Amino acid sequence: MAFTEIEYGVADGIATITLNRPDRLNAFTHTMRGELIEAFDRIDADDDVRAVVVTGAGRAFCAGADLGGGGDTFNHGRSAEMFGGRDTVDGSPRDGGGTVALRIARSLKPVIAAVNGPAVGVGATMTLPMDVRIASGTARFGFVFARRGIVTEAASSWFLPRIVGISQAMEWAMTGRVFPADEALRGRLISAVHAPDELLPAAYALAREVADNTSAVSVAAIRRLMWSGLSAASPWEAHRADSILMHLLGAAPDAAEGVTAFLEKRPATFPMRVTRDLPDAVPSWPDNPYELP
Amino acid sequence: MAFTEIEYGVADGIATITLNRPDRLNAFTHTMRGELIEAFDRIDADDDVRAVVVTGAGRAFCAGADLGGGGDTFNHGRSAEMFGGRDTVDGSPRDGGGTVALRIARSLKPVIAAVNGPAVGVGATMTLPMDVRIASGTARFGFVFARRGIVTEAASSWFLPRIVGISQAMEWAMTGRVFPADEALRGRLISAVHAPDELLPAAYALAREVADNTSAVSVAAIRRLMWSGLSAASPWEAHRADSILMHLLGAAPDAAEGVTAFLEKRPATFPMRVTRDLPDAVPSWPDNPYELP
Amino acid sequence: MAFTEIEYGVADGIATITLNRPDRLNAFTHTMRGELIEAFDRIDADDDVRAVVVTGAGRAFCAGADLGGGGDTFNHGRSAEMFGGRDTVDGSPRDGGGTVALRIARSLKPVIAAVNGPAVGVGATMTLPMDVRIASGTARFGFVFARRGIVTEAASSWFLPRIVGISQAMEWAMTGRVFPADEALRGRLISAVHAPDELLPAAYALAREVADNTSAVSVAAIRRLMWSGLSAASPWEAHRADSILMHLLGAAPDAAEGVTAFLEKRPATFPMRVTRDLPDAVPSWPDNPYELP
Repeated sequence: MAFTEIEYGVADGIATITLNRPDRLNAFTHTMRGELIEAFDRIDADDDVRAVVVTGAGRAFCAGADLGGGGDTFNHGRSAEMFGGRDTVDGSPRDGGGTVALRIARSLKPVIAAVNGPAVGVGATMTLPMDVRIASGTARFGFVFARRGIVTEAASSWFLPRIVGISQAMEWAMTGRVFPADEALRGRLISAVHAPDELLPAAYALAREVADNTSAVSVAAIRRLMWSGLSAASPWEAHRADSILMHLLGAAPDAAEGVTAFLEKRPATFPMRVTRDLPDAVPSWPDNPYELP
Repeated sequence: MAFTEIEYGVADGIATITLNRPDRLNAFTHTMRGELIEAFDRIDADDDVRAVVVTGAGRAFCAGADLGGGGDTFNHGRSAEMFGGRDTVDGSPRDGGGTVALRIARSLKPVIAAVNGPAVGVGATMTLPMDVRIASGTARFGFVFARRGIVTEAASSWFLPRIVGISQAMEWAMTGRVFPADEALRGRLISAVHAPDELLPAAYALAREVADNTSAVSVAAIRRLMWSGLSAASPWEAHRADSILMHLLGAAPDAAEGVTAFLEKRPATFPMRVTRDLPDAVPSWPDNPYELP
Repeated sequence: MAFTEIEYGVADGIATITLNRPDRLNAFTHTMRGELIEAFDRIDADDDVRAVVVTGAGRAFCAGADLGGGGDTFNHGRSAEMFGGRDTVDGSPRDGGGTVALRIARSLKPVIAAVNGPAVGVGATMTLPMDVRIASGTARFGFVFARRGIVTEAASSWFLPRIVGISQAMEWAMTGRVFPADEALRGRLISAVHAPDELLPAAYALAREVADNTSAVSVAAIRRLMWSGLSAASPWEAHRADSILMHLLGAAPDAAEGVTAFLEKRPATFPMRVTRDLPDAVPSWPDNPYELP
């Protein structure tokens, strides 16, 4: 599968996904949706990828759903293939942004959003299941759904309040306001604002911190523990998983290397691989409980 | 029903509720409890109301439960009608503050607290299920329950940690400290501090952002998605609701108007009405699982 | 039982636990694990203790698990007694840090971490179920597990995102970075940074606010409501508990004294005792659902 609406590349252990429809401000389409899911499938299957950077080509990150369909853009009855494909939930096509967001939430590699310009609608919500969001001073954000007559999609009603708190989430969602990077920073949607030409270097520096210092199996297990643990019924569930994983991984080669390297004050070289060595006990949300059989 | 302890009015699409016992610092009573619930019932039933501002008459917002009962104030065995009415939970009268808080949490319209002075006890906790809290520099807050020998009521043990984090919530609740507006701002209980005469204008400006730009049906659906989603078992529940609602609303008139108006760079005029057009698929907490049959 | 790796003392209503292996930077051992649990059992059973301060002897708070076992440190198959004891989860020894964290989470008294120096690994995660964390400017923090080839233990995948948000939690956990007190403050892991010689006085001042002003029964009930409420299915669960507790405690002596003292503008003297008077209706997480019979 060759990508047509994203660019995908891997260098030095870091994958870069670039939303790539610059003439349309990287507006989101059914094709882009499928390519993003495919890219994250490749990333999980590729032990050479330790972290992911997502950014946009040109002056925008992603201007939201492509509104080329005009007033029928969100009318799946007339544009059935737009976002839904054949997966359905109770007879409705699955929300397209949600299929991407839930795929990213399940990623085994950490994901860093480098928001280089406007991120509006699904362009904003697709970043919520990413681990870290940093932005250029030229970025703008908008959860504009209420201004378009639809709802906060991509499971953002679940993610956004858990990232910025229910009050900030409601303020942005109920007004549909488009706001600049500094308001996003104050509201804790992003963790840093950079000059435009320092944005990608900052994203890669963070990705390098992961790639150069950590066990890939540990990071994959931790990412799943934390994200799926956001909906765990109690800390006892975390304790159950911790106990099993500390027992399994504590006796495994990465732990021996990690501790030995630390004691010898040298960089660790971790031998384990995610595709082969990730324990089954690592928790996760289901892949797709709504998919047709 | 005429209100005696609150004032209620609607102007230009915005309802204002004013706690109105200024000689008693707007202390909370059984009567005020009933009137607040009635006001929110009216608001949900009135399509002319797009947003709600709650404030206090005189120099206080709400000084807490009226302590006119002295040491027996919270003794429902002796003052059975104080807060409980006839609804019970496992034989106990329902906590009065909680009946208000849970009603506000289910509101179909966004609610803005304009805290004009002291907000203590239930005067503080009743604001937690409101969407945005802003305050005058003369405001003070206190979760003083541990200093009175009772517990954090109005479901505030659930709301407060989700708004300000468990550490800040515990610091305020375990000390029972009364604290000024700037500490509330640093702790993220409120989002802004204003000069006293700029407080209501700021609240109305925020309400206008909602009323002038958004679909009422979208905002109602989004508010329910976000608040009830705070207790959703996983983002898959949000995705299920999103899929159904994007399918239904994407084909409905507000979405057609919202997208068309955006493309035509003109203000949208949304035709749909909450009382008539809100889909049944919008999730919500139950009205009252504890009410007697 | 005499403590050998912690110091324990009670003065003026405040218990102090001092991690006490200064020659090993207070590194965590199986012995320390047991002593911490024993200390919190004593604290809950001692009505003279109103609040707890936890700190470290010497220049560190706790440098993490004692790595004296080298590469086998986390290999329970070879060092079976290290953290696990005989309790198991699905055949694995229970994670040792988790047994401490979950015991602290259930504490009936508020717990203040006074982080006097490096707090790394379990030295950082053991503070997460404490209510307030303040630190010396010489403190450093690190969730270094991914650099050692293991996972975020002590149920920290559950606690950390609920304290600092999922994005900050993932940034620290995926990099395994060791970071200074000011980064901890910006990220809301701690609530204040103090000069080294002002740290303990600040911790005791906060503990005194609890001890001098509040009902012990109220504080115990509130602490259980808030912490176990973090995993409550909805605010209706809090409302159920509130209703029962407001009914019971509202008619009890501490409420009569609390309101009367407030009206008389004098300090309250609360007669009730946690060991005798805490209502059964106070919710809690279970003690240990995984313990062998």
